[in-house]
Amino acid sequence: MSKKTVIDLYFDVISPYSRIAFEQFQSLLRYEKSWPIEVNLVPFFLGGVMKATGNKPPMMTPAKAIYMNKDLQRNADYWGVKLVPPKDLMETLLNRGSLMAQRFLTAIDARNKEHVAPVARELWERVWVRNETIHMISDLREAAEKVKLPNAEALIAACNSTSVKETIKKRTETAVNQGCFGAPWIVVHKGEREECFFGSDRMPLIAHTLGCTFDGPYPLRSNI
Amino acid sequence: MSKKTVIDLYFDVISPYSRIAFEQFQSLLRYEKSWPIEVNLVPFFLGGVMKATGNKPPMMTPAKAIYMNKDLQRNADYWGVKLVPPKDLMETLLNRGSLMAQRFLTAIDARNKEHVAPVARELWERVWVRNETIHMISDLREAAEKVKLPNAEALIAACNSTSVKETIKKRTETAVNQGCFGAPWIVVHKGEREECFFGSDRMPLIAHTLGCTFDGPYPLRSNI
Repeated sequence: MSKKTVIDLYFDVISPYSRIAFEQFQSLLRYEKSWPIEVNLVPFFLGGVMKATGNKPPMMTPAKAIYMNKDLQRNADYWGVKLVPPKDLMETLLNRGSLMAQRFLTAIDARNKEHVAPVARELWERVWVRNETIHMISDLREAAEKVKLPNAEALIAACNSTSVKETIKKRTETAVNQGCFGAPWIVVHKGEREECFFGSDRMPLIAHTLGCTFDGPYPLRSNI
Repeated sequence: MSKKTVIDLYFDVISPYSRIAFEQFQSLLRYEKSWPIEVNLVPFFLGGVMKATGNKPPMMTPAKAIYMNKDLQRNADYWGVKLVPPKDLMETLLNRGSLMAQRFLTAIDARNKEHVAPVARELWERVWVRNETIHMISDLREAAEKVKLPNAEALIAACNSTSVKETIKKRTETAVNQGCFGAPWIVVHKGEREECFFGSDRMPLIAHTLGCTFDGPYPLRSNI
């Protein structure tokens, strides 16, 4: 077995930049095939990170909100990922939030890890492509049906379990203790060391850390 | 004469990410030689941008300050640019600021544009490499001597002229009207259109906009 570098990708489906990082790393279509890495998806709670660090979402500053919309479209175009901001952006991001969705992914992660990616992708597409909600149990149920998630009802019920609540809380704390203040939060495990990166825009620096080449949105297969 | 895309690089020597963008773009050593671009250095005042937009420097959030220090070191290593944070970081950035230095560069830009780059580099190295100050007239004088700036005393005197004060104010307003909320602010003039980018980390997207290839910190010569 080849020795691969494990990369934790802490993500929240409320975060469009997490989606970009997710699509870059995951789906086993991009750099997992060309760099010697193994991606570990870690659902956590961005709202908890913001609260713990006193950080504020970029769209709280009007000029940043306008820029972010443009920057997201450019990133989406560059990476070939569709991104459509929800119509009721502030309500979606600040009030409805992602707590239930992230608990659901945490429950899936604990019992059926290989289903985290398809469910996360479906939830992202609901909120960041199709203008659908993700904060209600019925939303989670629809997402589960769409991707044919086994044991969906048990996993939905687990969202309110102490075990899931404690797990997501601990993970969010772990990220904050590593220095996290937003999402995505990417942890490269180099032997005993952890190198932490914030954002979807540090791919060239991550490549540099790994001793690999960043080839843009469509990596060459010859890197590995 | 080949038709080159003009890129305005709005920068402030107080800003380490401006330094990274500057070294990427300017010095006629990197992408100006491999992409069909012509870089126009535009000194402006970051403090004025922050005030106009209500944005706050990243180091006002403790977790961001810690991350920023690490991120700057990684960027410096990647780009081969030296960056040493000033010992008295908060005092330097928040209280001493860069108003006189940026006025000085504005005066130079109006009368002797080709000297903007060497003076800016020297000022950056004072504050972001050698732990020296840039807020006093004697600092500007030292920088001018170091790079053998012609007419230094007249240019230093011009810092307090109405013309220089108005020019820097107008430029800062122009950037804010374009959507700027921080530095560096990079404006790509594509025909009648302006594509604006924030930060030193949008090189892959700028390449995509130009139809060029981003080759990392040491561009190939074959792109043009």
